[in-house]
Amino acid sequence: MRIFLAGFGVVGQSFAAQVDKRTQELVRRFGLRPRIVAVSDRGGVAADPKGLQVKRLLEVKAAKGSVAADRSFGKPGVSAAEALEESDAEVLVEVTPTDIKTGQPGLNHIMTALKNRKHVITANKGPLALALPALLELAQYNHVILRFSGTVGGGTPILDFAKKCLLNDRIVAVRGILNGTTNYILSRMTWEGVDFSTALKAAQKAGYAEADPSMDVDGYDSATKLVIIANWVMDMKVTLRDVSVTGIRNIDLREVKNAYDKGQEMKLIASIDSKLTVEPKPVARTDPLCVSGVLNAVTFKPQHGAEQTLVGPGAGGIETANAILRDLIEIKQALYPTFEV
Amino acid sequence: MRIFLAGFGVVGQSFAAQVDKRTQELVRRFGLRPRIVAVSDRGGVAADPKGLQVKRLLEVKAAKGSVAADRSFGKPGVSAAEALEESDAEVLVEVTPTDIKTGQPGLNHIMTALKNRKHVITANKGPLALALPALLELAQYNHVILRFSGTVGGGTPILDFAKKCLLNDRIVAVRGILNGTTNYILSRMTWEGVDFSTALKAAQKAGYAEADPSMDVDGYDSATKLVIIANWVMDMKVTLRDVSVTGIRNIDLREVKNAYDKGQEMKLIASIDSKLTVEPKPVARTDPLCVSGVLNAVTFKPQHGAEQTLVGPGAGGIETANAILRDLIEIKQALYPTFEV
Repeated sequence: MRIFLAGFGVVGQSFAAQVDKRTQELVRRFGLRPRIVAVSDRGGVAADPKGLQVKRLLEVKAAKGSVAADRSFGKPGVSAAEALEESDAEVLVEVTPTDIKTGQPGLNHIMTALKNRKHVITANKGPLALALPALLELAQYNHVILRFSGTVGGGTPILDFAKKCLLNDRIVAVRGILNGTTNYILSRMTWEGVDFSTALKAAQKAGYAEADPSMDVDGYDSATKLVIIANWVMDMKVTLRDVSVTGIRNIDLREVKNAYDKGQEMKLIASIDSKLTVEPKPVARTDPLCVSGVLNAVTFKPQHGAEQTLVGPGAGGIETANAILRDLIEIKQALYPTFEV
Repeated sequence: MRIFLAGFGVVGQSFAAQVDKRTQELVRRFGLRPRIVAVSDRGGVAADPKGLQVKRLLEVKAAKGSVAADRSFGKPGVSAAEALEESDAEVLVEVTPTDIKTGQPGLNHIMTALKNRKHVITANKGPLALALPALLELAQYNHVILRFSGTVGGGTPILDFAKKCLLNDRIVAVRGILNGTTNYILSRMTWEGVDFSTALKAAQKAGYAEADPSMDVDGYDSATKLVIIANWVMDMKVTLRDVSVTGIRNIDLREVKNAYDKGQEMKLIASIDSKLTVEPKPVARTDPLCVSGVLNAVTFKPQHGAEQTLVGPGAGGIETANAILRDLIEIKQALYPTFEV
């Protein structure tokens, strides 16, 4: 399978390293031989139709800051979109940084790939939050597959679970903790009695929160994930504008303590029923959803069966790379199904 | 899809009722038109190659105690195995009562079906606990599919989750609460400070424990489920004899209280690493595995990714029937794969 890798930051490098390390196993277990034929970053593109050496890509990136600096295969200044038009890659793996205002440059990459009949796997939430209904239609129109397991839950296969394991049922409601950073902050407020800004500083120090924490603490990261779940799992045609979003910045320590005294914990809950909402809410401590620290948890309510809760770690470079690999195997299996007894 | 339904108790009747109620939806969503061509119970068999009417089966069963009493289609005294040999059913749904000593009559039904090249879906743990490695081989040899989602977790797709959602990884360890009855008893001991026999009586009164509770409280129900997980998810070739089993009958209330004072709860934990074990153990209250009441929970530890925990209700007539339907859809899709974008 020939891969175009757009974005070569933490996730992109981790994905390339895993593909390299696990090639033999992937061939043996799944008949999948991934070959990275092009990589793009801010400096340009490196491309070789025969397949690039991952070790060399990582070295050039570390030494020169861009894969485009490779002497033999580098094309400085060439954009990913240009290179995509010409590439014979079958799959685009899109892992450029998330921008929820414009969706760029990911949105452009994804649309170019789909129009050129390339399958797309992305871990970039921006384009999906803004245009997922349109992108799914574009993929269908061009008879290619669009997958994005890494965008929700990272290491925890939340989307796959709902789609594959509850397949004879219909999800009618979802409630979840979809952001590890805010859950870490709220856990510290609950267990240590510290206020929001102290807990936020601790999260930043531990590497769980960014210097600008607004995507997380204002609820937009949770909201983008909720949009993706709504479209993919519940066939709703919604974007970020359809979500009512309240973050945790204004939570008073007294609210947190009051909840605790009633056997509850304050959590940033993302939910879908008749509408899409992200807001802080008390959750009973005996509820399986009530997980601590940077864990994510989602409860699905099916029409026929009983509620199911899935708990696991949120995003992380390796986890997200793993999710992309899962999508790649799934595309391979959808294209060339094998009968397994 | 022509179905032979062996066993017409709570699960069998619930399955038949669901198939009947949801036929139109199954045709539309999955191209699956299930037709029950034979049903067996202790009194004999009812069979009609054109398909039996579920409403009529339920009425005859309620009025006369056996489907074999049906005037037109009943065959009193005919055994399920005999009828299976002659039936043109494509799939056997085996839901006779569990016997973990002999596996019968389910073991005989399943082997007869596999040898006659019929796919098999079973919710009967007995045959699987005693002979799962052999049955999987027999299915493979005859090029048919053997599925048993309803045996572990009932309403919670534990087997599917591990197999489908973690497919690019390898599960290296499992830890779980696989029995709702014992978890209910331990939860009451923990929260209300009552001793084992009082909690057991409460469980019996609430309908969660049988009059003879030994399968549950002595750990054998958990052990059979562990055997199924080990074979299916981890490719181990093991049976019930390979599990070291300790139940909860001898748990002292002081142990439960001591654990609680340390921020833990006593749980009946079934685990697989280098060996298979069922035994009571303290679990940290912050561990996602630490669920209350009749819930089940399983934590999978993959080789590459991070730990995942799945939480949901254990067995129940409707949940198990739902799991059988899930397996039926999966068999349909494995036999006639469709390309889905």
